[in-house]
This record gives sequence, structure tokens and C-alpha cells, in this order.
Amino acid sequence: MSNPTAAMLVIGDEILSGRTRDANMYFLAGELTKHGIDLKEVRVVSDDPDAIVSSVQALAKAHDQVFTSGGIGPTHDDITADCIARAFGVHIDIRADARALLQAHYDKTGLELNEARLRMARIPDGATLIDNPVSTAPGFTIENVHVMAGVPNIFQAMVASVLPTLTGGAPLLSQTLRVNRGEGDIAEILTEAAQTFEDLSIGCYPFQVNGAYGANVVVRGTNGARVDAAVTQLAKDLEV
Amino acid sequence: MSNPTAAMLVIGDEILSGRTRDANMYFLAGELTKHGIDLKEVRVVSDDPDAIVSSVQALAKAHDQVFTSGGIGPTHDDITADCIARAFGVHIDIRADARALLQAHYDKTGLELNEARLRMARIPDGATLIDNPVSTAPGFTIENVHVMAGVPNIFQAMVASVLPTLTGGAPLLSQTLRVNRGEGDIAEILTEAAQTFEDLSIGCYPFQVNGAYGANVVVRGTNGARVDAAVTQLAKDLEV
Repeated sequence: MSNPTAAMLVIGDEILSGRTRDANMYFLAGELTKHGIDLKEVRVVSDDPDAIVSSVQALAKAHDQVFTSGGIGPTHDDITADCIARAFGVHIDIRADARALLQAHYDKTGLELNEARLRMARIPDGATLIDNPVSTAPGFTIENVHVMAGVPNIFQAMVASVLPTLTGGAPLLSQTLRVNRGEGDIAEILTEAAQTFEDLSIGCYPFQVNGAYGANVVVRGTNGARVDAAVTQLAKDLEV
Repeated sequence: MSNPTAAMLVIGDEILSGRTRDANMYFLAGELTKHGIDLKEVRVVSDDPDAIVSSVQALAKAHDQVFTSGGIGPTHDDITADCIARAFGVHIDIRADARALLQAHYDKTGLELNEARLRMARIPDGATLIDNPVSTAPGFTIENVHVMAGVPNIFQAMVASVLPTLTGGAPLLSQTLRVNRGEGDIAEILTEAAQTFEDLSIGCYPFQVNGAYGANVVVRGTNGARVDAAVTQLAKDLEV
């Protein structure tokens, strides 16, 4: 049986303008791989309602799980929650459970739960909250879409809350062979191996370090014995 | 007149499995911003022909320029050139001009231009070559799609070859105000500024460093005088 599939939607002008280097994609990719969920596609879109709505709809239809990051804070450019509600055609407003979480948090810190901060309690009807142990303001899950913060340490904490609730498949295992020859010299051997081990993915990633060059051959699959067999065969054929 | 728009397509299982952290998106985003081209969307897809073909078609239709990275090397998993040909419905084969470049390069280095390396001379009909000063194997441009290598230093060199040939708009200028208060305390002021300066983009990015927290307020726009005016107004209203 094949693994469940996933997509990610990164929301934010700051990524597309080159101001901020995204860190969440790399983190989520690694976590999903360990959990046996195949990340198939990532999209990055700007703070534009139509782009967010159409991307969420397309990705939610095409994949088992969708993870979003960004746009759920208290300021005017935080429009993700409202866009998700629109994408699913449901009502959205300040919800009592989310408001109570924020009230308790701000009572404790002595800050005012003002109108801006109350935006973070806007949750679409039918969604369940995602715990935020860092700064309280929750994410939420609606149908197969998990809506999370863009700030990396909060995003990571929310992923840790969500992942155990999802059915995973077999973790993707990988082994790497470092070969001190150019890709062009080993391509034929790799092609043969890819044909012999059709159930595995065999990738080749060239490197150049201090004038030396070569390639990392990466064998990936969910069956450890098969990955071992392919790596053994390749090590022999590539003489490494 | 508004700036031309662009999209990027990152191709490669190694990004989606979390093995490799993409570096090209961040680089391209910064270069396009300087050149006055608005990066509107990025997609990351796996080494899957259908995913590559449908993404290229969708992005090429929706944006003025499309930049791809990855999948143009000599190994079996390098399928980008063939997918691009399929996306545009054109013939692809080893082309004499690309072959001549490779032949000269490998003659000089004493390596054999074997069948695998000849894959890198497969260029769709009607495409123009993109110079690769790092390792010779060219990228190519077909219609509004620029097909480039995934290895970061080669990708960067190819971007440097392509960008001067494209019509840019006004570079996106930005100024940042660091505010030592929470987002929720300044959100109202930002909302007012966003209404006053409708031609600008005003973003708010919270940070937490060593227990201190605050937000970077970023004002972006193509009109320097307007950006200055907004920052002056915000600095006054935010008392920074």
C-alpha cells in the first residue's frame, strides 16, 4: 500500500520578495518523511486572497493532507484564516474556545486582549484547534487542511501537535553513496540500477568542493532490505 | 504601470524528501526584486513528468516569466528538458549547438562525451541556449520559460545570464522599522497606515530573541518617496 500524500502551502510576501528565507518547508519535509507521509508538492503564494483560496482548494483536492504556514497573526496582512473559510465555504468569526485561550494568556501576561489580538481567535466553523505551546494563539485543522503559524519555532511546535494525529505509512528510508566521479561517468550504472530496483527511487546529486567533484547517489524506499540490496549492488558496480 | 510577474518551479525529489534545503528560491526572489520583476508564486514538484508538465503549463500561462531549477543533468532522473518539450508540444533531440559546446568542453578536460553526457545536449526545438560558465552544459529558454540547473552556483550563473535580457520594472524598495512591542499592540496603527498608503505593502513580522520580543515592520513599494513618507509616519505613530 502506498503512503498518504501531502502538500504544503507557504503564505507570505516576505518569502517571495526575498526578505526572508523560508525554513518551514525544509523542516516539514523531513518530519513527513519520517512519519511515512509523502510530500508531493509545495506552493508559495503572496498575501493575496484569490491566490490563497485557489491554491488551498487545488491542494486539498489533490492530496490526503495539506499544511499551511503563515498569515495567522493579529495584523492586517494576516488573512489566512478568512481565506481558508472562504475556500471551504464556511462561516468564520471569533470563536469562544479560541477566545478563552487568548484571554487566559493575556490575563497572565498583563497585556490587553484588544481587537487586533482577537483576530487570532477567528476560527472557521467546524475546525478543531491546534495547540500552540509557544505563544498560545492556536492554529486549526479543517477537513484535511492544517493551518499553522509562519514563525519557525511556532510552526514546529504545531507540526509536533498535528503529526501524531495523522495516519502515517512506512517511513522513507535513504542511504547515500559518495562517488568521486562525475555524474556523466556513472549515469549508465544508475540507469541500470533504476531498472533493476523499480520500487526504489535512485537520485544523483553532483557536488563540487574545493575543486574536487563527484556525486552523491541517494537510494530511497520504504523497504529497508531492498534499499540495502540496491546500495550493495551500486557500491560494487560503482567500485566505492 | 505595474511590474512584470514571475513564477518559479523547483524540480526535485531531494527537496521534497527533506534531504536538501533549497537555496535557489531565496536567491531568485532577491534578484527578481532588484530587477523589478514581481515573483508571485513558487511551486516545488517531484521528479514526476505529469507534475512537471502541468505545473509548467499553468505557470507559463499565468505569469510573464517562469524560471525552473533542477533536472537537467546527465542521469536517468534528469527529465526536465523532455517535460518542457512535452509542455510546449515541440520536438526534442540532441542539438548540434549544445553538442558542440559539450564536445569542446570534454575535449579540453579529457573526459569522454558519452551517451549519458549527451543527454545534456537535448534541447527542445525553438529554444535558445542559456550560458553555463561553470560547467558548460547549457540551460535554455523556450517562450517565457527559462530552464536552469539545480546546483546553486550554476543556477546563480544562469540567472545572471538571463536577467539582463528581460524587461524589468521598478525595483521593489523596502525599509524596515524594528519595534520592541508585540504585534497585537501595533496592529491598529499598521491597519491605518495600510489604508493611508494603499499603493504600498506594509508587512509585520514578529520576532523573539533571548526572551525579548517585538516586530519588524516592513514597508515595500516601487516609489521611494512614498516609502519614505510611510516610514516617517509610522516611526512617529509607533514612537520609534
